[in-house]
Parts: sequence; C-alpha cells; structure tokens
Amino acid sequence: MRCTRCKGAAVIEIRRHNAAYCRDCFLVVFRSQVERAIDDRRMMDRGDRILVAVSGGKDSLALWDVLLGMGLEADGLYLGLGIGEYSDRSARVTRGFAEERGARLLAVDLAETYGFDIPTAGRKGGRSTCAVCGLSKRYVFNTAALDGGYDVIATGHNLDDEAATLLGNTLRWNTEYIARQSPVLPAKARMVKKVKPLYRLSELETAAYAFLRGIEYVLEECPLVEGNTQLRYKEAMNAIEARSPGTKAQFFLGYLDRGRPLFRAEDTAEIGACARCDQPTTGRFCAFCRARAQILGERLEPPPELQVAQELSDEVLPVEMYGAAAEAG
Amino acid sequence: MRCTRCKGAAVIEIRRHNAAYCRDCFLVVFRSQVERAIDDRRMMDRGDRILVAVSGGKDSLALWDVLLGMGLEADGLYLGLGIGEYSDRSARVTRGFAEERGARLLAVDLAETYGFDIPTAGRKGGRSTCAVCGLSKRYVFNTAALDGGYDVIATGHNLDDEAATLLGNTLRWNTEYIARQSPVLPAKARMVKKVKPLYRLSELETAAYAFLRGIEYVLEECPLVEGNTQLRYKEAMNAIEARSPGTKAQFFLGYLDRGRPLFRAEDTAEIGACARCDQPTTGRFCAFCRARAQILGERLEPPPELQVAQELSDEVLPVEMYGAAAEAG
Repeated sequence: MRCTRCKGAAVIEIRRHNAAYCRDCFLVVFRSQVERAIDDRRMMDRGDRILVAVSGGKDSLALWDVLLGMGLEADGLYLGLGIGEYSDRSARVTRGFAEERGARLLAVDLAETYGFDIPTAGRKGGRSTCAVCGLSKRYVFNTAALDGGYDVIATGHNLDDEAATLLGNTLRWNTEYIARQSPVLPAKARMVKKVKPLYRLSELETAAYAFLRGIEYVLEECPLVEGNTQLRYKEAMNAIEARSPGTKAQFFLGYLDRGRPLFRAEDTAEIGACARCDQPTTGRFCAFCRARAQILGERLEPPPELQVAQELSDEVLPVEMYGAAAEAG
Repeated sequence: MRCTRCKGAAVIEIRRHNAAYCRDCFLVVFRSQVERAIDDRRMMDRGDRILVAVSGGKDSLALWDVLLGMGLEADGLYLGLGIGEYSDRSARVTRGFAEERGARLLAVDLAETYGFDIPTAGRKGGRSTCAVCGLSKRYVFNTAALDGGYDVIATGHNLDDEAATLLGNTLRWNTEYIARQSPVLPAKARMVKKVKPLYRLSELETAAYAFLRGIEYVLEECPLVEGNTQLRYKEAMNAIEARSPGTKAQFFLGYLDRGRPLFRAEDTAEIGACARCDQPTTGRFCAFCRARAQILGERLEPPPELQVAQELSDEVLPVEMYGAAAEAG
C-alpha cells in the first residue's frame, strides 16, 4: 500500500476517502482536517483563550496536541471523576502530557469541590451513571471556563461520537436535541462557546494520530460504561460502515448540510439562570444542582427572594427539561 | 408465559409491548392493529376496490388474508419476475392461496408483457437488480390498478421494512425521500393511492400470523437479494432492537408523528406524464421506460409532436430524478 500523497510506504488506510498515508503525510492530513473544521465553522478567533476538556483518552489529547501545534493559547482542564484506578491513571497521563509540553493544566476534583464522585452518583442518583457524568462534565467545564475568562471550550468529540449521538437522537426523533447538535455551540448568557474540532475525524484516525505522535493515553474504556446506549449506536454504525465505508461521515456531515436547517425551529428552549448556582438552565434549578442534591440527599431550596416570589405565585414548576438544556454530546 | 389478554398459555411474546399472547388472542390483536392502521390513516373508504400486491411471501399473504377476513373487496396481483425456481414457487403458492379462498388473482408476467425478466435486468441495466425490481413492481402495480379501475393498491410493507427504509434515507439525509415515506400515498394524476396497512406490525409478527393461520408461503429470501443495502439496515436495526425492544417502532412511528412534518416542504418533485407510456414521472421518460430501453438496447424517442417541440427548444433534459419519483419503499 502506497501513500496517496507522497507514494512512500503507507501505514494507515482511510477507506471512506479511498486513501492511504505514510506517517508524516497522515499527520499533515489530520491537522489540516482539524484546521478546516475550525475555519469552516468559525470555531475560534485569533487570540481566543481556549480551554480544552482533557480526559486522558486519545481524542482529547490528540486535540490538545494539534491546537498547541497550531500555536494557539490552549490550556487543559482535567476533571477528577473518582472512578478508582481508571481516574488515577487518567490524571497521571494528562499531567505527563502537559508537563512534557510545558502546557498549562487546570484540575477540578468532583468529590473535593462538589462533594460526590461518579460511582456514588451512579448508585444514589435517579439518572444513569453516564448521564450524571455527562452533565457534571458540562457543568464543571462551563463553570471553570467562565471563572478563568476563557473564550472557547474545545472537546475531543470525534465523528464516531457525533454520528452515534445523532443516530440515538434520530431513532427517537428527539427533534429538540437534533436541532441542538452542532460542532459549534455559540456563547449565550452564562454559556461559554463550545466547539468540537475533531468532528470530521473518525475514532480510528484520532487513535492513529495519538499513536503516531507517541502520545501516551489511557487505552481502556471507562469501567462504568457497560450497557451504555451510545456504545450500541456506535456498534450499529460500525456494522454499516464496515460494509459501506463513508456512511458515518455522510450521515453526520449530511445532517449538518441538509438535515439541520429543517430542525432549527425545534430549538425552542428558553435559557434562564439556576436559582441555586446561577448557571444556565431551562428550568428553575439546573440539572447539575438537581442531580447533586439527589445524590447528597439535600433539598433544593430557592434563595429567600425567590421563595417569596414563589409564595406569591400559583405557577406550576416548569416541566422536567433539564436533559434538553444539556448539549446532546 | 401467560397470554396478556386471556391468561391462557402464550405462544408468542411481543417484547416491545411487554406482552404475550395465545394463538387466538394474537390473531385478534394482529387484526386490530391492521384495522387501526387503516382507520388512523384513512387508508380506504367503504366500497373501495383494493388491489393487493402479492408476492407469495408472508407479509403480502398475511395482509390479503386480513383484508379478505374484514370482508373487503380485495383482489390480488401477482407479478412474475422470472427469477427461476423462486418465482415458480411464489406463483404456485399465491395461486393456491387465492383458490383456497375463492379470491380473485390477477397476474402479469414481466417477460411476456414487457420483454425482460429481473435476472436479465440485473445483468444488462445500469441499476442494481433490487432497484430495477422495485421500480418495475411500482410501475406494473400502478398500471394494473389504473387499467382495472382499482381505488387503492395495498402492499405488505411491515414495520421492519419501513424502519430500514427510513434508516437508509436518514443516513443519507435524503430529505426528499424522507418527506415522501408514508403509510399512505394519496392518489395524484395517474397515480393510484397506495397504502401499507402492516406498517405497525413487525416482521416477526407477520410471520407468526401467517404461521398461526396455516398460510403456506415462500420462506426463502429472493436469491438475488445478496448485498442489498436494505438488508444491512435491517440487521443494524435488529441489533439495536435486541438490546432496546421498541426502537424500530419508536423510530418509524416517531418519524410519522414528529419528524415527517418538518420534511414536508422538501417534497418538491413535480409530476408529469412519461413521453413514452403516459405514466407519472418527474422527468421526460419514467424510470421504468428508461430502464427497459437500456435493458432491451432500445433508444427512447419521444412521440413526433414532442420531437418537434424539442427541436424548437434549447432546454436541457431535466436532471436524473427518476429515483426520486419512485416511492422510497
């Protein structure tokens, strides 16, 4: 197999592009796909301060590596989830990556700062472990980005992640979630802009990039992920992709091009401030404060001035819309 | 396992409804699902003459059986595709079914009437075998229904068929096809109304109905179906359904409820008459006439009056839209 670009010996085949690359050309192509995503979708402006959500996995470290390589001001944020050995290893790998490059790494420990870890949340909360984990990440990343004055949060979601999420939302015709799925979520009141610069690259490609760049990353899946529906959608997409290479890209990129415009009017959620923490929510309390209260066995009380307002009002609490407020990724 | 309705011994479990039924109750439930589909979607009016497209498979024979059981005026139409032993067996089984019930069966032989069979079409045409077969069926059923003065064509498409078709169209975000996928396609100029009364019932259920009713049907798949993309989509849906019972129904019924309204404006095809056969098409010649000419090695010439018009005009032939004119099923 020869490299499509330089005719040298290829080390990786990209079937959906009907192409193969040697190490150096693959790295060039990978980076140009990230740059294209950033440019096409106007993900960042010159001089933006970027906060990269890093987990210690291949995707987020590959992303951070590319952004640093582009000379951008990209700091990392690691969130300690308290998932035993898995979290310890993730923290170690992430620290090692940052130190090697002299990059700035912020860290938040969920248990230290918010009083619970993810295994406890899975046992005590009303939601699945993956759901609490997802909403906790979104909450902490947004809070940390606001506190640190960052302009953009960048996450390592790849094409496989986006296609699987879109498949799940489409199988349910969850039109609000579909409308909101995008590689760029613009800043709104109290919500920092969020971007996914790897959305054009498959999981295989991010793994190859990390490997070929000699990035040490945590290989194993989270031990709590078993039975996760997202994984099933990935399996289904992979089965189709194996027979029809390009299906994933066609599905997600076709959605952005032709599907999404039809769903726009479905994004009707009005965003206000959580009565407890002031973070954005479509309800009275944000999903994170609700989940946390449930896990810690606390009652959520609105602050005094809101209590009075409530006593004076017959309004019914808004419907349970917290899931909808959260980004689908 | 006990029957959900009568508490007798169950013979079939319907996981997505979390229900099980004995033979008699299952037949009642199956028929009521067909009746509900017909009523909810206004598929037929009292006294309508119905033409059932019968292939000799479980779905179309189960459908015909239910419609006859409801006392409706439902004749069958069998299309001989010329696929060797498979077609011979299908014709025999269909004739046997009709004779047993004293039902009226029309038959058209593709080779006799139109000069080609499906195996030849697959070898000589520019389309896949399944594509030519599908468009030939749509063409012949519509022509026969027009000629015979029928009000409605009923086909045996089940929930699995519809979900797989929708998945294929959605993976490509083929918004025009998505917009046009419906259990009821109303009559238009030269197009007889088409309905799919089994759209609420899964393949497992139609097979169980046929078996429990003692209907003899052709068990094997068409021998030419190998590599058919529809089958891959069915496999993908089945893999998800096995872990999350109800996904197929949620997907297709959710589409009808919440998805389809958003796509309506995408159904923009304007339908005219084929310059050769007068059947409906979005182009100058219908897909069937084009495919047939290609298979038979003929040139398609418009009739004299159109030829003159063409000479006087610089208009370019409309884009290849024949696929779009055909129903997605």
